[in-house]
Amino acid sequence: MASGKPVVAVTCTAPVNIAVIKYWGKRDEKLILPINSSLSVTLHQDQLKTTTTAAISRDFTEDRIWLNGCEEDIRQPRLQACLKEIRRLACKRRSGSPEDPLPLSHSCKVHIASENNFPTAAGLASSAAGYACLAYTLARVYGVESDLSEVARRGSGSACRSLYGGFVEWQMGERADGKDSIARQVAPESHWPELRVLILVVSAGKKLTGSTVGMQTSVETSPLLRFRAKEVVPARMVEMARCVRERDFQAFGRLTMQDSNQFHATCLDTFPPISYLSDTSRRIIHLVHRFNALHGHTKVAYTFDAGPNAVIFTLDETVAEFVAAVRHSFPPESNGDKFLQGLPVEPALLSDELKAVLGEDPAPGGIKYIIATQVGPGPQVLDDPGAHLLGPDGLPKPAA
Amino acid sequence: MASGKPVVAVTCTAPVNIAVIKYWGKRDEKLILPINSSLSVTLHQDQLKTTTTAAISRDFTEDRIWLNGCEEDIRQPRLQACLKEIRRLACKRRSGSPEDPLPLSHSCKVHIASENNFPTAAGLASSAAGYACLAYTLARVYGVESDLSEVARRGSGSACRSLYGGFVEWQMGERADGKDSIARQVAPESHWPELRVLILVVSAGKKLTGSTVGMQTSVETSPLLRFRAKEVVPARMVEMARCVRERDFQAFGRLTMQDSNQFHATCLDTFPPISYLSDTSRRIIHLVHRFNALHGHTKVAYTFDAGPNAVIFTLDETVAEFVAAVRHSFPPESNGDKFLQGLPVEPALLSDELKAVLGEDPAPGGIKYIIATQVGPGPQVLDDPGAHLLGPDGLPKPAA
Repeated sequence: MASGKPVVAVTCTAPVNIAVIKYWGKRDEKLILPINSSLSVTLHQDQLKTTTTAAISRDFTEDRIWLNGCEEDIRQPRLQACLKEIRRLACKRRSGSPEDPLPLSHSCKVHIASENNFPTAAGLASSAAGYACLAYTLARVYGVESDLSEVARRGSGSACRSLYGGFVEWQMGERADGKDSIARQVAPESHWPELRVLILVVSAGKKLTGSTVGMQTSVETSPLLRFRAKEVVPARMVEMARCVRERDFQAFGRLTMQDSNQFHATCLDTFPPISYLSDTSRRIIHLVHRFNALHGHTKVAYTFDAGPNAVIFTLDETVAEFVAAVRHSFPPESNGDKFLQGLPVEPALLSDELKAVLGEDPAPGGIKYIIATQVGPGPQVLDDPGAHLLGPDGLPKPAA
Repeated sequence: MASGKPVVAVTCTAPVNIAVIKYWGKRDEKLILPINSSLSVTLHQDQLKTTTTAAISRDFTEDRIWLNGCEEDIRQPRLQACLKEIRRLACKRRSGSPEDPLPLSHSCKVHIASENNFPTAAGLASSAAGYACLAYTLARVYGVESDLSEVARRGSGSACRSLYGGFVEWQMGERADGKDSIARQVAPESHWPELRVLILVVSAGKKLTGSTVGMQTSVETSPLLRFRAKEVVPARMVEMARCVRERDFQAFGRLTMQDSNQFHATCLDTFPPISYLSDTSRRIIHLVHRFNALHGHTKVAYTFDAGPNAVIFTLDETVAEFVAAVRHSFPPESNGDKFLQGLPVEPALLSDELKAVLGEDPAPGGIKYIIATQVGPGPQVLDDPGAHLLGPDGLPKPAA
């Protein structure tokens, strides 16, 4: 494969995002158009990110992709949809401008390598970060400068929200061709510096209903989901954007919890019913409400996606006390030193009052570990050639 | 207390009912008027019933009540509401007809004794049977012949459905005074002789949100509940009545499960969220869906009220196989001979195919016991004086 012909390689990183107004249900399965708008918080890449290298060369005889070091089938429909769309945009752009700044044509085959810096075991929506990173990296290597919402969305709906940092809304749009179903930033990552995010990774249970199949069944069978999408979400989008703009944690936290609960309610209204929350998830919900009740206002908020893991939002001043409360209710089972990952958290003593409130049956090992993080920026280009996941030969570098 | 003055005593029994279209939420807390109509199946009193004796005498100086042998506070608002209403009706009736057939006036004080033939531990809605029995017995002793829906309803909303046997609907009504919020029989107990009911009593967990408080919070905070009551239930009432009339078990079972799931979905949409289903409840739901999937159609259906216990509907031909499946998935922990109560159930062997489907992790002791029963008649008057729970002195007889 090594040859004299040039290989153009670009490496980028992209973040994970967590929805506070949930996306559940498509109005168009092929174009991946949602039945309602959604709003998310972009998490910091210091803790959670996907890194992707895309390389093009006239030497390459076929498109290829490696995920976390293993080659995957490039013919997956969603990968093909992203590649097709990016090449369409690249082609369009060229025809738009006479001079071609790139040495290579958009017709070149591409090699792609991608990896996450977090265990997939964490059950976090890695596909969002993955497809956002793919779209962003392919755009750079093929010289595409237009909006990438559609490219990312065709891979995974929520991926379009990982194209921006801070607070991002995915407008559902109205057009049948989906051209107006795009992501836009509501506020940058610098807007709310006190906001913190704790990911409580719950010990994995049995296999869950995949979200693609799950949301399709919900759309077909849940009358409550149709009502939610049409009558409830629009007002919640407006209110959530206000909460973010005004940094109103009270309202932000309450609405975040209500929307997570409503999403899971529509899963239960699906037939057959879908349950993503485990008893541990419910214990966390109960813990949060008791913690807030003791303080007399909303200091902590939870949200759950299509799995039992909790994502907690709170302010920096509350992190230490809440983490201590979690440790008290879910005593770490082994190597407690690795129980807390990510941003440093000061140890804190619990008041006897709080201990009493949390008193009831602790659940040792219910939570595997906590990742402490914060709001972060959107995708980044890595200029250091050493960062490339593909070598000069266009094949994955041996793991360092 | 013993004296020459006559004591008139009446003893009646009343059944438990299980809603297949759920009642959740009041539009009038005082009159106990629901936000939607509901439909229930009356269970047979051979397995589950409340027995109540009401005695009146000029000797009695105050109203008194004993529940399961212990005296309770007669001043409870709901008890008072029932007594007040029955006396109002008795008074009205007398004023209607000049001659008074009864030896005693409706102004007489009453002694009431009531007991259930099933453990309250079963977590079954004993209040429905209890208040239905109270209303029915008081009506007999005070000579009231009008509709008793309101008397029973004032004690516990769903109690009005226990005033009839077979299949019963509680029409929500429209009037502010609740006069048109009444129960009526959709079909008698003889209508669907093959129908069977299995109550799966789940090992009790932590204390749950009471249904009175729970439904109030739901009405105040769940947008999905308001939608359900207004837009979903009316059509479901019509369809459920059709399923019963035509003995269409396929549709009856499916709609029963969907309505149970939707009720619990509105609990989850409540803020703070309410969870009545435990992991064992979810295992039962999963078991039922796998059982039906294997058979290719709905042979078994579940419904859950404000607790983790499952009530299963099926046809006589399926009882033995399903009970064997439950035994396989939830091996009885101790004295397996008492695991099955009520109607006799033949032992059955599970096909290897079914065993394979149910294969995944059994949960020993998850289900404490099963009560097998069927559709039954409404309240009954017991003519045998030996059945009285109160002696000639108007006090509870010593337990036999």
